[in-house]
Amino acid sequence: MDRIPVGILGATGMVGQNYITLLNDHPWFEVRYVAASPRSAGKKYEEAVAGRWQLAKTYAPHVGSLMVEDANDVSRAAAAFKKGECSFVFSALEMGKDETRALEEAYASAGIPVISNASAHRWTSDVPVLIAEINPEHADIIPAQKKARGWDRGFIAVKPNCSIQSYMKPLHALAQAGYPAQRIIVTTMQAVSGAGYPGVPSLDMLDNIVPYIGGEEEKSEKEPLKIFGCIENGAFKNAEFPKISAHCNRVPVTDGHVATLSLEFAAKKPGSMEEIKAIWAAYKRLPQEADLPMAPKHPIIYREEDNRPQPRKDRDADKAMAVVIGRLRPCNVFDIRFTALSHNTVRGAAGGGILNAELLKYKGYLA
Amino acid sequence: MDRIPVGILGATGMVGQNYITLLNDHPWFEVRYVAASPRSAGKKYEEAVAGRWQLAKTYAPHVGSLMVEDANDVSRAAAAFKKGECSFVFSALEMGKDETRALEEAYASAGIPVISNASAHRWTSDVPVLIAEINPEHADIIPAQKKARGWDRGFIAVKPNCSIQSYMKPLHALAQAGYPAQRIIVTTMQAVSGAGYPGVPSLDMLDNIVPYIGGEEEKSEKEPLKIFGCIENGAFKNAEFPKISAHCNRVPVTDGHVATLSLEFAAKKPGSMEEIKAIWAAYKRLPQEADLPMAPKHPIIYREEDNRPQPRKDRDADKAMAVVIGRLRPCNVFDIRFTALSHNTVRGAAGGGILNAELLKYKGYLA
Amino acid sequence: MDRIPVGILGATGMVGQNYITLLNDHPWFEVRYVAASPRSAGKKYEEAVAGRWQLAKTYAPHVGSLMVEDANDVSRAAAAFKKGECSFVFSALEMGKDETRALEEAYASAGIPVISNASAHRWTSDVPVLIAEINPEHADIIPAQKKARGWDRGFIAVKPNCSIQSYMKPLHALAQAGYPAQRIIVTTMQAVSGAGYPGVPSLDMLDNIVPYIGGEEEKSEKEPLKIFGCIENGAFKNAEFPKISAHCNRVPVTDGHVATLSLEFAAKKPGSMEEIKAIWAAYKRLPQEADLPMAPKHPIIYREEDNRPQPRKDRDADKAMAVVIGRLRPCNVFDIRFTALSHNTVRGAAGGGILNAELLKYKGYLA
Amino acid sequence: MDRIPVGILGATGMVGQNYITLLNDHPWFEVRYVAASPRSAGKKYEEAVAGRWQLAKTYAPHVGSLMVEDANDVSRAAAAFKKGECSFVFSALEMGKDETRALEEAYASAGIPVISNASAHRWTSDVPVLIAEINPEHADIIPAQKKARGWDRGFIAVKPNCSIQSYMKPLHALAQAGYPAQRIIVTTMQAVSGAGYPGVPSLDMLDNIVPYIGGEEEKSEKEPLKIFGCIENGAFKNAEFPKISAHCNRVPVTDGHVATLSLEFAAKKPGSMEEIKAIWAAYKRLPQEADLPMAPKHPIIYREEDNRPQPRKDRDADKAMAVVIGRLRPCNVFDIRFTALSHNTVRGAAGGGILNAELLKYKGYLA
Repeated sequence: MDRIPVGILGATGMVGQNYITLLNDHPWFEVRYVAASPRSAGKKYEEAVAGRWQLAKTYAPHVGSLMVEDANDVSRAAAAFKKGECSFVFSALEMGKDETRALEEAYASAGIPVISNASAHRWTSDVPVLIAEINPEHADIIPAQKKARGWDRGFIAVKPNCSIQSYMKPLHALAQAGYPAQRIIVTTMQAVSGAGYPGVPSLDMLDNIVPYIGGEEEKSEKEPLKIFGCIENGAFKNAEFPKISAHCNRVPVTDGHVATLSLEFAAKKPGSMEEIKAIWAAYKRLPQEADLPMAPKHPIIYREEDNRPQPRKDRDADKAMAVVIGRLRPCNVFDIRFTALSHNTVRGAAGGGILNAELLKYKGYLA
Repeated sequence: MDRIPVGILGATGMVGQNYITLLNDHPWFEVRYVAASPRSAGKKYEEAVAGRWQLAKTYAPHVGSLMVEDANDVSRAAAAFKKGECSFVFSALEMGKDETRALEEAYASAGIPVISNASAHRWTSDVPVLIAEINPEHADIIPAQKKARGWDRGFIAVKPNCSIQSYMKPLHALAQAGYPAQRIIVTTMQAVSGAGYPGVPSLDMLDNIVPYIGGEEEKSEKEPLKIFGCIENGAFKNAEFPKISAHCNRVPVTDGHVATLSLEFAAKKPGSMEEIKAIWAAYKRLPQEADLPMAPKHPIIYREEDNRPQPRKDRDADKAMAVVIGRLRPCNVFDIRFTALSHNTVRGAAGGGILNAELLKYKGYLA
Repeated sequence: MDRIPVGILGATGMVGQNYITLLNDHPWFEVRYVAASPRSAGKKYEEAVAGRWQLAKTYAPHVGSLMVEDANDVSRAAAAFKKGECSFVFSALEMGKDETRALEEAYASAGIPVISNASAHRWTSDVPVLIAEINPEHADIIPAQKKARGWDRGFIAVKPNCSIQSYMKPLHALAQAGYPAQRIIVTTMQAVSGAGYPGVPSLDMLDNIVPYIGGEEEKSEKEPLKIFGCIENGAFKNAEFPKISAHCNRVPVTDGHVATLSLEFAAKKPGSMEEIKAIWAAYKRLPQEADLPMAPKHPIIYREEDNRPQPRKDRDADKAMAVVIGRLRPCNVFDIRFTALSHNTVRGAAGGGILNAELLKYKGYLA
Repeated sequence: MDRIPVGILGATGMVGQNYITLLNDHPWFEVRYVAASPRSAGKKYEEAVAGRWQLAKTYAPHVGSLMVEDANDVSRAAAAFKKGECSFVFSALEMGKDETRALEEAYASAGIPVISNASAHRWTSDVPVLIAEINPEHADIIPAQKKARGWDRGFIAVKPNCSIQSYMKPLHALAQAGYPAQRIIVTTMQAVSGAGYPGVPSLDMLDNIVPYIGGEEEKSEKEPLKIFGCIENGAFKNAEFPKISAHCNRVPVTDGHVATLSLEFAAKKPGSMEEIKAIWAAYKRLPQEADLPMAPKHPIIYREEDNRPQPRKDRDADKAMAVVIGRLRPCNVFDIRFTALSHNTVRGAAGGGILNAELLKYKGYLA
């Protein structure tokens, strides 16, 4: 079977590099179109990233030979689309919010579906914010989105912020089992790769931590409410709960965001810690049932050791797509507390975007 | 005026080294007696620490020439006491809890007051756990302690765990102003020096964090209740509040523990964030009023920048004895939240012990 | 084809853990016997390493179920050998030098070939120190070794220190091309995993480097002379050149030793830097020609970027078995200078040992 | 005695911040004039550095209140000079080389002496590159410099690159004792503060080293030859020796450059390692004899421990102005080898600049 040709917007940046390496051997998708800022446009991809490549893994040879296009040139992408070189695009754009919003809409309007990592459209009322295991049905707003905007084939679907990835699935599993959370206090310890490159200066990360990441706490508190929300009249209506209070910190770790959570249940409480672990172990959802290529076999992995999860040892679990949890215990103030980890540039960025594309393909939204 | 001769038990360990450098130029106390494990006993101090010295600052020359005594040999210390070489001891013993408890009692019984950093006696009902700004009146249990045990001059006073130092003074300041806390959820990010040397392996602290420190969460939750408690019938009675839930983590930082807190007030709430900052800025207590040598001029320093406090920049504030706070803001779940930092080996260990000794001297308990 | 059953001595230590994960899917060898200190003996492997596992990758399920044997119990190993559970052993023993030497001889004497990572036998006159690309013919001392010691099937072969792995192959390639080195001054920047676990304390590796590793400089200077030497009368005779002067440093890196070299050629000098790069690029030896499973396709990889090799980006090149070189340029004092890197726990330890076993199997020394 | 008013060009950058804190309590000089880029000009200094302050120490209150001037506005500085607010300037400019060169000349031409940290004028033939202990007599080119350029009171004097500070004084001490070096191979491991802020990205410094620093090797090889050179006909003539080959690396350390050196003497060799240590211990020069305020009492400190010098423990020795050496031993290839360290932002930057100013004041060049 032929692989579907895909494009990467922002292909030379760090998230773009992650997309490209993760798609090296993808069974469904093949990178055939790369676009970046005008500075890189016109160069071969291998030239454009020479000396700027950040990852230990490298790109497939055929990607190195692709000509980098100007990401602002939507007509060039539309032409590629017509020639069958680009069936949809992953957006890893790193420009301002307003420009990103407009440019992603221009692609969609030109008939090109946009699966985005950018935050620009997360609060657009008819754009789904997808975590494939949690709210696959949110994709079903796409027909309404297309219709309202007069788009024939293009649409926009996004993924949420990387900081919430480690705790959304555990919360969802508990809610599904009848134990929704009412209130949560969470502290994150986030890896530097989340800030891109050059990103965080080393003087801030040697013998130091920084107790602040601009905008991150707001995203950590609000995005879950849209993901746990529902569709009403062609627009998303947020859930009211859980109330979340987030403290977001930058720590000297390359990859892997860790979160400590204290959680109060809304009503009924699980009978024991063992019941909760059993709920997490049993959590399998559409991506697992449909055996999507990027889906982790075990979306939630629980480690019994006292001192886990740890970024260096646990971030790569199950293709770096699993959430790894440890230290579940009663909370002195709320009901339970635990520590959760997910790989921020894979599960929390490019890997999550690819899984969303697989989901959309599976559901028929990517022809 | 002659300086009071003091001894250090556990003088070659990391806390012992901190005591010795902090006392290099102390106006009241002079190190004249150093004791450690039998392995070091009989050597000059400079020989005993050669190749094991952990600090950037070094010891005073006269300390280098002291002969290291066996810390288990209480009679040797008693002889030194009689000769006027050692008026009281700082205990930085690193042996087992039961042995520490017994040995500290043996010193007290031999007439030598013990100002301890060890955790062994923190839950002994008639031993005060002192933070000089918060509960100086707890020292007044000493006469009852001596009497009950038949000690003439010796006694034991201890300091609490380093993990709670960053938030106890801010909580106390608020309580004094009429705003006691009811419930607190705290996540700590603790420096490796807290584990001594060799302590935490580097493989655990390069590109990693460890979400667990044995025993630390229990100490962080319970010790505040004794410190906020009162004396009844010659024994301490714990406070009931605040309820604290702690998540303690080890992070790749040399010195300086950081804590993020979400806090619910018991009843009345401050009118604004500005009111709280004013309360903290005005917080001056006995150590400041008495101008004790080791006391910080400003026990609580508030930084307005978004990205502070940071360990490397803030841990040394006011002789490394101040608490530095930042990011005060309303909490989405409780009432307020903020980030606090204190230097764990100075304020949280040797410096706190010296301040306690100054307090006890000031109050007349060290003749 | 059935895989050959192999044993690991020191299976619970860090090098042992590396052996076990690297052999998870090995086409020729299968771990069927694990031995460690008496403390671990009698437990299942998964129990013995619980809470002590250091790697991101885990062990194969069947290894987790193996019973850990006492590594000192050679008769137990001999019985396993007879039952076909253990055809030879990899030695990753972490005991004293004399004990290791005696114990490895006891295994060989009991008929069990020993492929060792330990340094104990590196200077035994009839034991080969193998780097599979450089001196495969040194394996041919094995018949003489067996005969002299009266061993029928057992023998001992070892690998050299991890610190020299990054520069031995580049030197060998140049020597093979007619440009042997006369004098070398090398500075290494070595990763902490080389010291095992717990190994280097984090207080030595946060905001710090340590300019000393006990015994490392002597090994770095002398072992190359044996590897470049020849067999005379059943014993190794060292080469006289190159003279090496080594400065060995520990740096805050998890895996990957880096070395900077300045090199003076013995006589003839290459015509240009390009000639040298061509020599390195063309370097293929027995492991590549025989397509041994663990052999890197490209034993020497040259990176043209100014700022490479870097541990995090280059250590995993070609299964972490390649040497990665960069910054080749004329030396102001000698002839040339460059920077070289190799993965110390794979190429420099377990991976190198496995490649040696493949070589010995290929040459018929492992039945 | 009144302190001399001084200005800082580039006052808000990292070297500028270091100047300002080091001058907080200086007995001779007082910061009265601060200049920076147009972006900062017109703000109070405390506003200009809010959120950008990199150091643990803070600035003196009176500096916080100074208005920041535009560094390009030389006439403003000249006016301040006339009003007695600025007797000379320290240049910590961070602009391009050509602009820096021209701007520093404009200040000198306006009558304002410039003591510079910038590299722009290091190869100007009549500008001295001073290390106060080594070549104080190079300052005596100043009259010729003024005359040739028609400057009445202004002049330019600079300091060399931070990478050579750790080994220049040890080399000079040996040369003075009759043992000049002929050839040197040096590898540096340099701290990130040398690159300023934001400087080196944290993704390059977590679990990594970078074996390259642009331009640093050339400076490390050539600048010593000017410093060891002499004045001929109003211009500097470089020394021919030592030939130096440098390998410069960036390592995850905040402050403190470490260098490993192998050294060949030109002719006569010291009789023993002890003789060399005695030479280093006895090394006292003009700054020590004149007791200049910033001069270290012991310019060269030798540590006998195997594992020193280390950045975290040794960089602050003697006000961070001393060189700390360890591991002196015979070299297998040249004559001797050793490891040396100096604090790059103090001795290697602002502290070295201040010491140069003290030297120039002492010699009468700063009225």
